[in-house]
Amino acid sequence: MSESLDPDDWTAFRALAHRALDETFDALQAIRAGAPWREVPPGVKAALDADPLPRTAADPSAVYATFRELIAPYAVDNRHPRFFGWVHGAGTPLGVVAELLAAGMNANLGGREHAAVYVERVVLEWWREVFGLPPGTTGIITTGSSMANLIAVLVARRRAAGAAVRTAGLAGAGALVGYTSSEAHSSMGRAFDVAGLGSEALRALAIDARRRLDVGALRTAIVADRDAGRRPFFVAATAGSAATGAVDDLRAVADVAAAEGLWFHVDGAFGALARLSSADRELVDGIERADSLAFDFHKWLHVPYDAGAVLVRDGALHAATFADEAPYLLRAERGAAAGRPWFTDFGPELSRGFRALKVWFAMKAFGLDALGASIERCCALARGLGARIAREPELELLAPVSLNIVCFRYAFATDVDELNVRLAIELQVRGLAVPSAARIDGKLGLHVNVMNHRTTAADLDATIDAALAIGAEIKRAGRSQT
Amino acid sequence: MSESLDPDDWTAFRALAHRALDETFDALQAIRAGAPWREVPPGVKAALDADPLPRTAADPSAVYATFRELIAPYAVDNRHPRFFGWVHGAGTPLGVVAELLAAGMNANLGGREHAAVYVERVVLEWWREVFGLPPGTTGIITTGSSMANLIAVLVARRRAAGAAVRTAGLAGAGALVGYTSSEAHSSMGRAFDVAGLGSEALRALAIDARRRLDVGALRTAIVADRDAGRRPFFVAATAGSAATGAVDDLRAVADVAAAEGLWFHVDGAFGALARLSSADRELVDGIERADSLAFDFHKWLHVPYDAGAVLVRDGALHAATFADEAPYLLRAERGAAAGRPWFTDFGPELSRGFRALKVWFAMKAFGLDALGASIERCCALARGLGARIAREPELELLAPVSLNIVCFRYAFATDVDELNVRLAIELQVRGLAVPSAARIDGKLGLHVNVMNHRTTAADLDATIDAALAIGAEIKRAGRSQT
Repeated sequence: MSESLDPDDWTAFRALAHRALDETFDALQAIRAGAPWREVPPGVKAALDADPLPRTAADPSAVYATFRELIAPYAVDNRHPRFFGWVHGAGTPLGVVAELLAAGMNANLGGREHAAVYVERVVLEWWREVFGLPPGTTGIITTGSSMANLIAVLVARRRAAGAAVRTAGLAGAGALVGYTSSEAHSSMGRAFDVAGLGSEALRALAIDARRRLDVGALRTAIVADRDAGRRPFFVAATAGSAATGAVDDLRAVADVAAAEGLWFHVDGAFGALARLSSADRELVDGIERADSLAFDFHKWLHVPYDAGAVLVRDGALHAATFADEAPYLLRAERGAAAGRPWFTDFGPELSRGFRALKVWFAMKAFGLDALGASIERCCALARGLGARIAREPELELLAPVSLNIVCFRYAFATDVDELNVRLAIELQVRGLAVPSAARIDGKLGLHVNVMNHRTTAADLDATIDAALAIGAEIKRAGRSQT
Repeated sequence: MSESLDPDDWTAFRALAHRALDETFDALQAIRAGAPWREVPPGVKAALDADPLPRTAADPSAVYATFRELIAPYAVDNRHPRFFGWVHGAGTPLGVVAELLAAGMNANLGGREHAAVYVERVVLEWWREVFGLPPGTTGIITTGSSMANLIAVLVARRRAAGAAVRTAGLAGAGALVGYTSSEAHSSMGRAFDVAGLGSEALRALAIDARRRLDVGALRTAIVADRDAGRRPFFVAATAGSAATGAVDDLRAVADVAAAEGLWFHVDGAFGALARLSSADRELVDGIERADSLAFDFHKWLHVPYDAGAVLVRDGALHAATFADEAPYLLRAERGAAAGRPWFTDFGPELSRGFRALKVWFAMKAFGLDALGASIERCCALARGLGARIAREPELELLAPVSLNIVCFRYAFATDVDELNVRLAIELQVRGLAVPSAARIDGKLGLHVNVMNHRTTAADLDATIDAALAIGAEIKRAGRSQT
C-alpha cells in the first residue's frame, strides 16, 4: 500500500487536516474583523506565478503552509458582511462540512446506482415543490445558472427544431429567434451563441420604468419576426436582474408565451429564491408556469461555489435533448450500472461531482423557513438602504429597489462616471466595503447587492457614511487641482 | 449575528466538523475491507425519496447522522482497490483537505483580483509545460473533459466561421464538418450537437487493428467532404479511448491537420496523463502539436470529482470565443475588479468554484514524478492482466491492451453477451469487484480500468479468479437448466 497516494503517516496527516479545519473556522469566526478585500501583494503574485513545475513530492504540511501564506489571506472576500459586489453568496461553515464529506465519498453523479443519486433527485424534487412545478418535472444540478440557462435553451431548441437538430444541426431549422429584455444576464445571450443560434437571435427588448421586460414590446417583436419569416420559439424572463434586481412580470410573460406557443424560460439565478420569503414571494408569482427555470444555490442559499440547477417541466423532452447510449455506458437492471435515468441524460456532462450534498445539508439544517427569513431580511435591508440614499442630497439612486440590489452614485459635478469608479475602488482598497461598479442606462455608479446573511443595517450605514466621506474627499481633491 | 447562518454554538459545531473529518478518514483507511459496491437497500431508497421538504431547521448533527446512515455506506465505490468500472478516479485523503479549504474560502473564480485566480493560472501553466505547448497558450479548468471538449469545439467553430458566428449563428457558416474515430468519446459528438453543428457533422471514422483512427480514412473523408461542397474544419484525436484505452497516432493526425488546415484537437481525458509516465509517454507523442487539448484531473490525478481542463494554443482566439462585456461586470485598473483576463473570458460559466486548489495541492504534495510512477504502475498492471487473460482458456481478450484498460469476456458457449453482463453484475453484487460491461465490436464483455492508486496485482488476480469461478458457476447453472 505504500505506493498508493494515501498518507504514509496517517497520524500526522490527520493532525494536519484537523488543523486546516480549525484554521478555516478561525478565519470564518474572525471574518468581520478583517477587510472585505485585500490587494494581493506583488511579492505574493510573483511567488505564485513563478512557482516551478512541482516534480518532486512535498510534505502536505509544507504545501498547506504555502496556502496559508500566499492564498488564504488574499480573497475577494464575499464572506465578509460588507462585501456587496456583483451577486455573490457568502458561504457558511456548514458548507465546509458538506464539501469535505462529498470529497471523502468522491462520488461521480453522472449516473449509476448509489445513494448520492437519490440525494440529487430528492433535492431537485424539493425545489420543484418550492416553485410549484408539476410532478414529472426533471432537473439537474449544474455549476450555476450559466450552464442551467444553456441547458434550457438546448431543450427549447430541441422542441422547436425537432430530433434532427441533435444529429443534423441547425441547417434545416429556419431562423429561430427568442426574446428577453435588455436587463437579462449575459449568459442568456451566451447560451444562444454556444447553441449556434447566435446571440442576436435572442432579442434584447425594451424595459419599463421598473426595468421589467416591456410586454407590449414583446408582442410587437414576435409579430415583426413572424412577418419577416423568422420562427419565434423562446422567451426568457428575468427574476432578479444582475444589474438592479428587477423582476419581470412573470405572469404577463407567461401569458404571451402561452398565446404565442413560445417556450417560457425563467432565469431566476438569485431572484427565484424570493419564493422562500413570505414578504417578497409575490414578486415571482408566475414562476410556477415556467417551462424551464434556472437558479443558483451558491448565491442566496450560500452553499460554497459552485452549484445551481435547472428544472424542466417536460421531462421527456429534457431527456430527449441529452440522452444517448455509448457502448461503454451500458445500463443494467441490477448492480452498479442500474438506476435510471442517469443524470448524464439531462445535461452535457458525463462526470459530475456530488454538488447535491451541500444543497441537501443546507436545506435540511437551516430549513427553508430560516433561509426564507434570511432572504426577506436582505430585501428589507436593501429597501432601507434605498430610503437612506434617497434622503442623502449628495447621492442619487440609479434604479428602483425591487429586491435586494441598490444602485446609486455620488453626484459629482463633473467626471461623474470616472469619479464614481474611483469611489468604488477607494472603498475597496481601503478595506471598508466592496461595492462593484455598474452602468445603469449609461450612468456609472455603485452596485450594492445585499445578499450576505452576515450583513446588518449597521454595515450598510457604515458603507454609506464611508461613501459620503470619500466622495467629499474626492470632490475636495478635484477642486484643489483646479 | 444570531440571525446569520453561522453556528450559534461554535464549540458544538466544531466538534461535529472534526468528527465528520475523522469518520471520513476512518472510511478511507478501511476502504479495502469493504465492498466496492453495495446495493442501496429499498428502505434507504424510500427514506431518501420520501423525505419531505425541510421547512424547519434541524440540528446539523442530526443531518450528519442521516448522512452517515443513509448516504455514506452506499457509494459506487470508486475509492476501492477492486473498483474497475468505466474510467473513474479514486480520490485521495489529501483531496478532502483541499476541498474543505476551498469551501472555506468560497472563492468565485469567474474573475476579479484575488489569489485564487493566480493559483488557477499557475496550474494551467504547469500543464502547458507538461504537454509541451508554447507560451501564450491559454486554458481554463472545467468540470471535466465533456465541457473541455465543448469549449475546444467552440473555439474551432469560431476560427472556421469567424466572429459573426457568435452573434449571427451558424446560418452563414456553410456545412462545417469534423472528424474523429468510432472509438471517440460520446462527449465529442455531444459537443457538435450542443454547438448546433449536429453530431453527424463529426464523422466517426474507421479504426485500425490497434483501435486507432485510420489516418488513410481521414484523408479520404476530407477529400470526399470537400468534393461535396462541405467545409472540413476540425479533427479530434483520442488519447485513451473510454472503451479500450486506445491512443490515436497523434503525430500522424497532426500531420494531416496541418496539411489540410484543420483544427487539431486531442481528447486526452485520461490518456493525456500518460505524458507523466516515463515508460508510456511516447504513446502520446505529438500531443504538443495540439491546437486544443482536453483532459481530466478527477481521473488519473485522483482529485475529488469534478475537475478537468482545456488548453488552447491560440490564446487570442480562445478569448475571442467567449469574452464579452456586461455592464455589471466592468473591469477596473485597481481594486477587486482588476486582474485580466478573467476566466469567464475563456469559457461559458460566469460563476466558477475554486477547483484549481485541489489540483494545486495534488501536484505540489505528490509531485509529478510520483504521479507519473503511479500511472506507469497502472499500465504495467494492465499489461500483466492482459497477459494472464491471454493464458486463460475460458477468457477472451476483446481488444489489445494499449494503456490501462483491459476488455475481455468469458467464452460461454451460448448467450455469451447476456451471460457476460450477468458475470459483471454478479461480481458487483457479491461485493467482489466492479468491472463495468462494455460492447467492443458488438461483443459484450467486462471492462477493467486499472487506474486506482490503491490497486495491486493481487487485486487483479483475485478479480480474475472470481470471474473464472462465477463464470463456471453460470455455465453449470445453464447446463442444469437445459
